[in-house]
Amino acid sequence: MAESVLERLNINTELTREIIVNFIRDEVYKNGFERAVIGVSGGIDSALSAFLAAEALGAENILGIRMPHRLSSKASLQDAQKVIDALGIRHDTVEITAMVDPLIERFPEMSKLRQGNIMARQRMIILYDQSSAFGGLVVGTSNKTEFLLGYTTLYGDSAVAFQPIADLYKYQIRLLAKAVGIPQSILDKAPSADLWTGQTDEGELGYTYNTADQILYLLVDQRYSIEEVEMAGFNRDLVESIWQRVRRNHYKRTMPNIAKISYRSVGHDFLYVRDWGAG
Amino acid sequence: MAESVLERLNINTELTREIIVNFIRDEVYKNGFERAVIGVSGGIDSALSAFLAAEALGAENILGIRMPHRLSSKASLQDAQKVIDALGIRHDTVEITAMVDPLIERFPEMSKLRQGNIMARQRMIILYDQSSAFGGLVVGTSNKTEFLLGYTTLYGDSAVAFQPIADLYKYQIRLLAKAVGIPQSILDKAPSADLWTGQTDEGELGYTYNTADQILYLLVDQRYSIEEVEMAGFNRDLVESIWQRVRRNHYKRTMPNIAKISYRSVGHDFLYVRDWGAG
Repeated sequence: MAESVLERLNINTELTREIIVNFIRDEVYKNGFERAVIGVSGGIDSALSAFLAAEALGAENILGIRMPHRLSSKASLQDAQKVIDALGIRHDTVEITAMVDPLIERFPEMSKLRQGNIMARQRMIILYDQSSAFGGLVVGTSNKTEFLLGYTTLYGDSAVAFQPIADLYKYQIRLLAKAVGIPQSILDKAPSADLWTGQTDEGELGYTYNTADQILYLLVDQRYSIEEVEMAGFNRDLVESIWQRVRRNHYKRTMPNIAKISYRSVGHDFLYVRDWGAG
Repeated sequence: MAESVLERLNINTELTREIIVNFIRDEVYKNGFERAVIGVSGGIDSALSAFLAAEALGAENILGIRMPHRLSSKASLQDAQKVIDALGIRHDTVEITAMVDPLIERFPEMSKLRQGNIMARQRMIILYDQSSAFGGLVVGTSNKTEFLLGYTTLYGDSAVAFQPIADLYKYQIRLLAKAVGIPQSILDKAPSADLWTGQTDEGELGYTYNTADQILYLLVDQRYSIEEVEMAGFNRDLVESIWQRVRRNHYKRTMPNIAKISYRSVGHDFLYVRDWGAG
């Protein structure tokens, strides 16, 4: 039963590629830019975003930045270089260690989770600083699975100018990555945020991406109830736990609420500047 | 003529205070929290937010953090302490210098603007780390004037859990701050982001907050055209320039766009988890 759900996640990779490449061009050009900046981690998500951004804007208009911490895996750094070399994009390497460690030293009891969030946010700082220096927009690398699960750092890896692949589940990311020619070593390895040695996403989440993708697809895209997902062949406790994650992390997918006081308020009734007359 | 517009910005401070205090309680409690974390800069905006948060949640549930850089003004640090002392909230001081300087040293040609953005974002990192350690939500301190002008650092000072005073123009912030008893030295001084010595907001913007507030009120709240604002007694070039700032910085007030691929997509048609059945 579960196998047939995975089949329903298949995508037309050529059409998807075309939609995303056009989306990237539109986002960059309509804002008056020609260039983009992207953090290249050595993982499949940033590799795919970099490939699509280079196709959209031209390799010479992309700055790929590697941002290792002292504790990051050397293999990831090499995989990131493979992406850079395959595309021929501009590149730089900026270590985050010296930016991260002072705060960890200030609070020595800090958990690994807090440390990981600091690392993700320091990378955002570097990307936005290089965005200013290079004159390019920061390209997002989030996928739909992690975005729905909230398996992201608020104001860290999710803090970007636009999100080209955030509507693709991890299973679909793999299909598209293979179709556009991402290096094989990147396609093959276990997904990891690489925040500490031996970390894997699936180990931390407690289930595989293939399982999460199918459950999320039924809940979100197909609007199944929890009972209906259970009847489709999935463990009820797991379905409930995934759904709770989606709910609990909704705040990461919205702007902060603003206390309404005046006639027209940002986020309430002052939403779309384009829609009204002045100027 | 211009004077009469400023009068229209007067607010009922008691009612406004009650609305915001209830908003803060609602935001914190509905998310399962009891506590809040706030960056206290010594300026009027963070002082007002801290006063209202302490009234809403109780002083013992607020952690106020001072985050000076080596180059920050000592007077600001003292004013921040005045806020902490007046409220009796918990407090800590975390220097940002060691977190900021490595990136500036890596790119020695860096402009003051880039440096200031790095400082604002490092403060966000500290607040979110303390949010995790203390178990409290990060309170926003943005006002409507700077939010509309985009006079904020994206993923820096505007990166918070909720915004209690972001629908009040600076003129209204002053009225409310006076009414709730903010220390006089904070009410009296020139607004400054304190990113370098001698910086003042009004010096950097090129016009006073009183002027900006009136023009923004007519354009945004009253939906005047540029011509109508000019007829109300304001310089046309200035009105146009302010309106361009509002438009150009709209991206800071919205979530990053997501390329739409699937049936239901975050930010397109998967917007309100609360509104549908599963779970």
